[in-house]
Amino acid sequence: MYKAPVKEIAFTLNHVAGLGHAMEQGIFGDLSADVVEAILLEAGRFAGEEVEPLAEAGDRQGAKLVDGKVVLPDGWERLYRDWISGGWNGLTGPEEFGGQGLPHMLNIATLEMWNSASMAFGLAPTLTMGAVEALRAHGSEDLKKTYLAKLVSGEWTGTMNLTEPHAGSDVGALRSRAERRDDGTYRIFGQKIFITWGDHEATDNIVHLVLARLPDAPAGTRGISLFLVPKFLVNADGSLGARNDYFAHSLEHKLGIHGSPTCTLIFGDGKYGSEKGAIGWLVGEENKGLACMFTMMNNARLAVGIQGVAIAEAATQKAIAYARERTQGRAPGTAATGMSPIIEHPDVARMLLTMKSLTQGSRAICYACAEAIDMSHRDPQKAKHWQERAALLTPVAKSFSTDAGVDVASLGIQVHGGMGFIEETGAAQLLRDARIAPIYEGTNGIQAIDLVTRKLTIANGDHMRGFIAELCGIADAVAQSNLKGFGETAPRLRSAIDDLEKAGEWLLSRQADGALAEALAGATPYQRLFGLVLTGSYLAKGGLADAADGEGAKRIALCRFTAENLLAETAALADRVLVGASSLNAARIALA
Amino acid sequence: MYKAPVKEIAFTLNHVAGLGHAMEQGIFGDLSADVVEAILLEAGRFAGEEVEPLAEAGDRQGAKLVDGKVVLPDGWERLYRDWISGGWNGLTGPEEFGGQGLPHMLNIATLEMWNSASMAFGLAPTLTMGAVEALRAHGSEDLKKTYLAKLVSGEWTGTMNLTEPHAGSDVGALRSRAERRDDGTYRIFGQKIFITWGDHEATDNIVHLVLARLPDAPAGTRGISLFLVPKFLVNADGSLGARNDYFAHSLEHKLGIHGSPTCTLIFGDGKYGSEKGAIGWLVGEENKGLACMFTMMNNARLAVGIQGVAIAEAATQKAIAYARERTQGRAPGTAATGMSPIIEHPDVARMLLTMKSLTQGSRAICYACAEAIDMSHRDPQKAKHWQERAALLTPVAKSFSTDAGVDVASLGIQVHGGMGFIEETGAAQLLRDARIAPIYEGTNGIQAIDLVTRKLTIANGDHMRGFIAELCGIADAVAQSNLKGFGETAPRLRSAIDDLEKAGEWLLSRQADGALAEALAGATPYQRLFGLVLTGSYLAKGGLADAADGEGAKRIALCRFTAENLLAETAALADRVLVGASSLNAARIALA
Repeated sequence: MYKAPVKEIAFTLNHVAGLGHAMEQGIFGDLSADVVEAILLEAGRFAGEEVEPLAEAGDRQGAKLVDGKVVLPDGWERLYRDWISGGWNGLTGPEEFGGQGLPHMLNIATLEMWNSASMAFGLAPTLTMGAVEALRAHGSEDLKKTYLAKLVSGEWTGTMNLTEPHAGSDVGALRSRAERRDDGTYRIFGQKIFITWGDHEATDNIVHLVLARLPDAPAGTRGISLFLVPKFLVNADGSLGARNDYFAHSLEHKLGIHGSPTCTLIFGDGKYGSEKGAIGWLVGEENKGLACMFTMMNNARLAVGIQGVAIAEAATQKAIAYARERTQGRAPGTAATGMSPIIEHPDVARMLLTMKSLTQGSRAICYACAEAIDMSHRDPQKAKHWQERAALLTPVAKSFSTDAGVDVASLGIQVHGGMGFIEETGAAQLLRDARIAPIYEGTNGIQAIDLVTRKLTIANGDHMRGFIAELCGIADAVAQSNLKGFGETAPRLRSAIDDLEKAGEWLLSRQADGALAEALAGATPYQRLFGLVLTGSYLAKGGLADAADGEGAKRIALCRFTAENLLAETAALADRVLVGASSLNAARIALA
Repeated sequence: MYKAPVKEIAFTLNHVAGLGHAMEQGIFGDLSADVVEAILLEAGRFAGEEVEPLAEAGDRQGAKLVDGKVVLPDGWERLYRDWISGGWNGLTGPEEFGGQGLPHMLNIATLEMWNSASMAFGLAPTLTMGAVEALRAHGSEDLKKTYLAKLVSGEWTGTMNLTEPHAGSDVGALRSRAERRDDGTYRIFGQKIFITWGDHEATDNIVHLVLARLPDAPAGTRGISLFLVPKFLVNADGSLGARNDYFAHSLEHKLGIHGSPTCTLIFGDGKYGSEKGAIGWLVGEENKGLACMFTMMNNARLAVGIQGVAIAEAATQKAIAYARERTQGRAPGTAATGMSPIIEHPDVARMLLTMKSLTQGSRAICYACAEAIDMSHRDPQKAKHWQERAALLTPVAKSFSTDAGVDVASLGIQVHGGMGFIEETGAAQLLRDARIAPIYEGTNGIQAIDLVTRKLTIANGDHMRGFIAELCGIADAVAQSNLKGFGETAPRLRSAIDDLEKAGEWLLSRQADGALAEALAGATPYQRLFGLVLTGSYLAKGGLADAADGEGAKRIALCRFTAENLLAETAALADRVLVGASSLNAARIALA
């Protein structure tokens, strides 16, 4: 059913996220548009033909804990091995460890496809890639030598062990502990929950990155260290040794992503080995674990954002296909007798266009974020600019796209009517899967706090001001294009950008005045406002780039729909930021 | 966990929906506030102590088809019988058939409680009550005598057999057929899908109301007749006779409401009886079945609306309880050391207040709709006014409340963070259950078409204009109250009402000009706009009524939050109605 939108993805990469221009500049060596397209085509084929056929059964069957072993759904172990054989895990990995060193943009684009086909499956590489980033940035040479090649190829998977029952959003509250040993290794003890792909039999080994506290560590986030804890110890020759002392205690019974084993892991209980304690190796410095974990999490946040895009794309495809086939009633203004395809009913068209608009907008935001990450590594002269841009875009890419995933999946159910509520249709699964994405890797509320207090404030707001000037440039270019198809896009986009600017300046001034609570009250509306403005801006940028042919007319018409329907919301969002805090605070008594 | 908000429900009934005033006028005989409260208290106890404890297990186990019989979850048959023993099914039923003849408002209020406790369970009486209404209005004396008392008591349940694979929203497309027999009965043949509580063993008999076509019937909706088809034929002495010729072919595998058996029923396949064809009795006149079914559906639409309220209430309670207990991070402006309850974080407070506001607003809309239904029967001098009001409010009560149910349940998951995605928490089940309500009994898109083309247009728009004048009266009363707690409620409510008026007049003028497609393109935004304005207005009405004490201050503060945060959206919605159609139409090429 899912057909990777290779043309749309390539277009967005090349003309919205700037891959095309960067390749022309030689920034990615001899990478060419043809190679990019060939990679995308083959990824699309694999996602549609190999991954997706196992998605629904994987959901129905789910991952199970059987006699202490985590059993993946039928066919998934083979699927995973086929997938790594295709080289997909190492697409963007470092070449010195066997990776292909391709742009992160391309990695995000292919991640979108795996997640569209099966989000539960797409999670495995998402976590592994995060582990690669963290080890690459913070691991010792020994650790890199032992683990990186296997993680880059995907022969071993990686995990992120952060959450504990009392430490979710508040990482500083975690209690797992680490003890130093004489040989420079550590013993790890504690319980971790919600560990994605925390255990399974698809690979010979699993590399856990685990946050824990040393006995003499300071309280809070400054006393957290990061450890590498392999499932099986690795001998000097690379062969696998003893089983490490941790085990999967249970799997969660979740709303969605059933194929992905979400584990409670218990470390150091003495189940394996003669001495209690899982053996771990320090990554980075003692008590500096959170900084290392953030390397992993920033990467993961964009990778979660693309899950939202992926679900939105899959839901939109499914809904459009259904709405073309399903006939009910007579649409107004149709000459034909008999029932009309429901796509012709204005209200159904409104739902589908909204879905399409949110999908393309959130895709553009995620790709633009990936572009900034790529350029921060490849454009030394502007590295700081691109680092700031990536930092600024990450919370929006994560939150706006995952909210879009949920909203679009829910609209997709609505388009299907009663059939949408029946599991066999698959529309419901998309909503069930999508619903975790606004929560994990930092809830969208946490993203909003990050955006307002750490990203908007970069260079005292000047980076954001520069970005707003860029967005105004897009609106102006639309105005100057004189293309009728854009309708009121230019003034509406301009007005939405003004809302964004006004809200941002207010948030900066509140923080400057020390009124943090007021600023935080407006964080979520501001974050959505930002996402909507970017959606409008990037759809316009695409429309301008593609103005020539028939496809361009479609793109411009969707942009106009977005500007004249969705952007109407920005004024209300800015109003919530500027005015809402006071009434929110007063209304707290209603929650008492 | 669920605790029926008896005080809030009684307040809304008495002071927003006008039950208090009507009782003072003697409109409901000797019914008093004390009796109302006693009924609500006992219903709340039953819902919280008897129904809710079986809800989660009912979801996990689900209804099953075993050897041709529909098996309800463990304990549900006994629960249902205990529930009818309490007299709850006949609360509002006609006294001549054993009902208590109480106001429909009270029925809707108790339906809210059953559905908060378990929406899957609450569906059984919902359908039975619809059957009572249809039979009472259109059944022959014989049919009434044979079936009504049993349906009023709930000893037998009722169903509505409308949907077929190719006839959902488009009822006129149905193909089930009926043949006349010499004895005045009919034989029914065909397949019906999505039949709620279509079969089960909790009662001795089930009374199906089935739409089918006679051989010589005109095409489309004018050729549909309604038949009563009992599971077991009823002998002259009231005892049960032969099994009728239909059976439950399968149960649907659904996203939610697992405890409710959703059946495919096959009529006239020859499985039972010597002659093929299920025996049916005509209800109303031949070919006038749709009018009869609409009696049932209008009732059911409000009853589905209250499901949205019910889920929203349950989700809000659950989220507030969790947010009070769960500690993470330090909220800004708190002096305490250590972690804060998450309810103190501004963003969480925003979610919870939004949930509370939508819950109370949609409750008020549903109760006001029930009031209009009651008054249309009990206030003969203004019967037409109240009929029009009920007609106008029904689509908004259905759609706004069920959308609120989904939105609030989804926010409830978000407040729970990772725990919200774990099924055991129960927050996810609320979303899964809620998601059907915007679809069945006429999708919310169909409600919007009904609102714009058949309700807004009542008396050429004059009924709506009169209603808007009433709403302006509330805004003016807020302004005149000089209560500081209302903040900017008066001007913001007034501005929202202006948006509603402007959008409504435009929709009327487009229809008058024959531009139906343009009007329909704005139907859904208009419907939501209407619901938001009613939410603001009714919360204000409640605030004014309750201004004296401490609870009143809470109510007023929530009203202010609603006015200064949620109502900001109305301008965008009006804009979509007035401006959106043109770009929507132009963007259809993007769906080709």
